[in-house]
Parts: sequence; structure tokens; C-alpha cells
Amino acid sequence: MKIAVVGTGLVGHGWAIAFARAGHEVALFDTKPSQTEATLRRIDTILPELVSFGLIESDGDLRARITAYASLKTAVEGSGYVQESGPECVSAKREIFAALDQIAAPKAVLATSSSGIPISAIAEPLGGRARCLVAHPANPPYLLPIVEIVPAPWTSEKAIATADAVLSGAGQVTVQLKKEIDGFVLNRLQGALLHEAFRLVEDGIATAEDVDRTVRHGLGLRWSFMGPFETIDLNAPGGLSDYVDRLGSMYLRFAQQRGAARPWGPKLVAKVEADRRASLPASALSERAAWRDRQLMALMAQKRMPDTAPANILKDPKK
Amino acid sequence: MKIAVVGTGLVGHGWAIAFARAGHEVALFDTKPSQTEATLRRIDTILPELVSFGLIESDGDLRARITAYASLKTAVEGSGYVQESGPECVSAKREIFAALDQIAAPKAVLATSSSGIPISAIAEPLGGRARCLVAHPANPPYLLPIVEIVPAPWTSEKAIATADAVLSGAGQVTVQLKKEIDGFVLNRLQGALLHEAFRLVEDGIATAEDVDRTVRHGLGLRWSFMGPFETIDLNAPGGLSDYVDRLGSMYLRFAQQRGAARPWGPKLVAKVEADRRASLPASALSERAAWRDRQLMALMAQKRMPDTAPANILKDPKK
Repeated sequence: MKIAVVGTGLVGHGWAIAFARAGHEVALFDTKPSQTEATLRRIDTILPELVSFGLIESDGDLRARITAYASLKTAVEGSGYVQESGPECVSAKREIFAALDQIAAPKAVLATSSSGIPISAIAEPLGGRARCLVAHPANPPYLLPIVEIVPAPWTSEKAIATADAVLSGAGQVTVQLKKEIDGFVLNRLQGALLHEAFRLVEDGIATAEDVDRTVRHGLGLRWSFMGPFETIDLNAPGGLSDYVDRLGSMYLRFAQQRGAARPWGPKLVAKVEADRRASLPASALSERAAWRDRQLMALMAQKRMPDTAPANILKDPKK
Repeated sequence: MKIAVVGTGLVGHGWAIAFARAGHEVALFDTKPSQTEATLRRIDTILPELVSFGLIESDGDLRARITAYASLKTAVEGSGYVQESGPECVSAKREIFAALDQIAAPKAVLATSSSGIPISAIAEPLGGRARCLVAHPANPPYLLPIVEIVPAPWTSEKAIATADAVLSGAGQVTVQLKKEIDGFVLNRLQGALLHEAFRLVEDGIATAEDVDRTVRHGLGLRWSFMGPFETIDLNAPGGLSDYVDRLGSMYLRFAQQRGAARPWGPKLVAKVEADRRASLPASALSERAAWRDRQLMALMAQKRMPDTAPANILKDPKK
């Protein structure tokens, strides 16, 4: 299938790799041609790393399936699926979707990578709004499999099923939200944890670095192969309801003590920023982001080891 | 050093392995001798698994350093550090600590594994209260390195430093909380995420399984080697404060929409429990817990690979 990736910035390059890895022809378009050029160069540095971790066989074959187009029309024509990844801005997305709905083949699904704007705010007036939906990835999507599919009330079952088939077929792990909510599931969960994390620092309980250590040497190790519900399900002899019987009132007390939401004010943010800069100078941020991606590659490589390898236990039979 | 592990149930067996692995002589005591017998049998099944993942060299050598004692006095005599892991109950812990303070050598540090009760509620009346503190592990401590050290206002700097040296020396990763708080850091962070998770299910946004997928195929993969602050620090070109400039108001809106804490009521818990039982029958819970521990062993084995291995990237130079 030909897949169009419209908007080739921070998220678009990752979609291009994910779809091309699955054997699709990927058509790139961005209103700024220089952005697409930079993205192709970035892809050219990432592909050899994926080869070195054994995650793809040939960077050349994959790269040959990615083509930059000079116009939205030629990029979208003949595409069965369009992944829009432009700026997180309602008016910009409305404009792009109006154009996409005119150009794209009638059967093509139109998806946005929006990390917070619901599709109903973008596609409501369009004739083809039934084929529009959110497909929100984590970043980068070729290393973090999760994609949240979030329909508007009028999105057709067929469009949802097609999007799910395209994304699952490309190796992503999909969740279909039952209805629209601001922030979807991933960023809501992340936000809840971040609110508590900022609060612990503001109240002088722990440093930002200590909060990070508690997650990466504790909570996060379990959550990398089990979700929060499975975690507590396995933490009481009688399973999840037994766990809630034992500890539910304790967790309710924590939440009640917190009271109203507290903004992350400038003084607090400066404190956490200073703690981060003590660990990592600003000049090393992009190098560390590349390190993060190599860590994810190593994790993914381990999860894909053949069944004969000792570490095959990391492969979860139940996705 | 001789280390006494007092209370040999769910958490105690893990401490015994962690301390014996570090070369310490471990003295076990439980008020129920049958509990200690069961714990020794459990240890005997775990050690060969640790050998098979390359995490220890010899199960026999390690096992030889663990000894069960028939009395609290003989277990604690000569110990430089005592890790109490009895029931999570204030009156029981007060009683045990009163006895420990009488028996233990003057220089010995007395630590409790309490996951929520602060040490000030346990040790306040004791003559040796300055040597008492919380050392809260994740479970099991020989696979999840994090330990939260939580002092009372009167705990001595020396006791904190000794506990930290013993625990860090045994390969644990410590965080020292600046002051006491109900639930410490780990369970507060876990609770914040769980409250949002239960809410998303109760409001019909997602199933429990979809929430779990979103964490284990997305958020949790990053959090297994970075904390929440490092994660957002690397998710905006200008680092953490840039990220908060861009998205802080969005996260504040999520929290404000939530309003007051909502208990996890029986109907909601039954719904999540049913979703879990559809994934895993209750009869398979203990088998799945053993699977979880093998997953953690595989993760730990990968993080310990020598620098020459391709996956050595998983070794974080900055603990």
C-alpha cells in the first residue's frame, strides 16, 4: 500500500520508518521542502543503527520505499492511508484535513498524530469526516509500538477497522478508545504521574533525580512488560480485588491529601530544570535523545530474540 | 557482616537473597518457624533460576550464607544491620522494634521494610531511636534495586549513612527522602497513576487491558531506563522547562478536570477484576508472578552484559 506521511517533523520521520519497515511505499510531504530534506538525512542516520541492532535487515531496501513529493496532491494520490503529523494547532490541522478530504481517494483513511486535539475539533465540517480519526503514537513510533486510535462520534467502524489493520499490520500495538477525551490515555497517565512527581519535589520530600531513580530502578522496570493493573494483580495472593481490599484506602488517602491540582510554577520548574542540568548539560540533550533511542532499540531487540534464546522469556505471548 | 532478616514472609525472602548475594551472613528469624522453613524452600527454587540467567555464579555458596535461627536473640546478636519485614501493622512493629533495640549491638542499624508506616510511629519511645529508619524495597529486592531510606526527624546522620552503605554495597539503588511522608515516593507515584487508570476505566474511555497495553508498549518502556523528569527533558528541544512551557497548561487542565479524589468502588473494582481474569485466570496468578520474576531476571541480565556486548548500551553509566 502507498501511505502518505504529511508533515515530516519530529513525529513524521518516525512514521516513515515504521511504515516503510512494514513494506509500504511511503510518500512524504511537508509545506517546507527543507524540512523534508532534513528528515531524509535524519532517516539515513537512523537506519544503519536499526540494522546494527538486528531490527531491520537492509537499510537500503527500506530507504528505497521512502519518497519525498513536491506537492500534497501527488503525495496523497493513490494512498490508502494518510498519517498527518503537522503542528499541534487546531486551525492548521483543519486546513490540512480540508485539503486531504478533497484530494484523497474515497476509501483512504485520514489519521492525525495529534497528541491532544480530538478529531471532532478538526474534521466536523468535512464531507468525508466518517473516515477521519486520531492515531496518536508515542515517539518515535518505530521503537515505541503503542498507537491510540481515537474516533469522533461519527467515525465509521470501517475506518477504525482499516486504521487498526494498517497499524497492527505494521507491527504497532493499537488501543481503540471508546470515546474522545482530552489527552487520550497515554498523556493522561503520564500527567497524573508527573503531577505527583512535581509535588514531591516542591514539598521538599525528594530531589528530581531521586524521583527519576525511584521510577527507573523500581516502578518502570515492572511497567516495561506489565501494565499498572497487571502489576497490582500479581501483588496480592488473591489478585487485583484482594490488592484493593488491602491497600485501596491507603491510595485514596494519598489522593485526598493532595486536594486541588497545583500548577507547575516557574520556581518549581527552575528547581527541577537545575537538577536535570546538573545530570545533563543542555548541550548534551540531543546526544542523550539518541542514547534513549538506542536503549529502546536494545530493549526491542531483546524482546524479538528467537524462542531458542535464554532471554526469550521477555517475549510476551499475549500482546 | 552478619545481617538479621526478621520476618521471613513475602519481602523477607527477597532480602535474604539480596544480602547473601553480596557476601553477607544472613540470619533469618520469624515468630512462626514454619514460615522460615517455607521461605528456605522458596529460596531453594529461586537460586537456580538466578544461576541460569547468569545473575549469580553458585547457588550453593549463596545458600550456605543463609541460616535460620530459633530465637530473635541469637539471630540478632552480632548483626551490624537488622532488616525487619514483619506484618504491616503499627502495634506489631512497635513490639518488634522494642525487642530489637534491647538485643541489638549498640552500633547496629535497625531498618523496617514498612511500605507506608513511618519509622516515627514505630520507634519514638525507644532509647535507640536514633538508629532506626525505614528501608522500603520494591518486591522482590534482589531483582528491583530501588530502596527508599526514610528517616524520622531524630534519626542520626550516621545511621542513615550506614544503612546507605550497606544497601548500596549490596547492589541496591538507594534514595534518601528528606522528610517523612505517608506512602513515601514509590507508592505515591504508583497511586497517582492508578487513580487515573481506574478513572479512565470507570468513565468508559478504555478497558483495563487497553490501559495496561498503553503502559507496557509505551510509557513503561521509557520509564524502565529513564525517570519521568528525564523523559520530558528529552522530549522538547530546549529541555524540561521548554517542555513545561509547551505542555504544562495542558497537563494542568487534565488535573483540574479530575477534581476530587474518587474511591475505587466495588463496581469499578469488579469490572477491572473481570478484565484481568479474562486475561489470566486466578489459578494462574502464582505462575504468572514467577514469569514476572523471570522477566525481571532477563532485564537485569541484559543490563549487566559486559561492555563488549551489543546490548551494553542498556548499562546506564549514571546510576
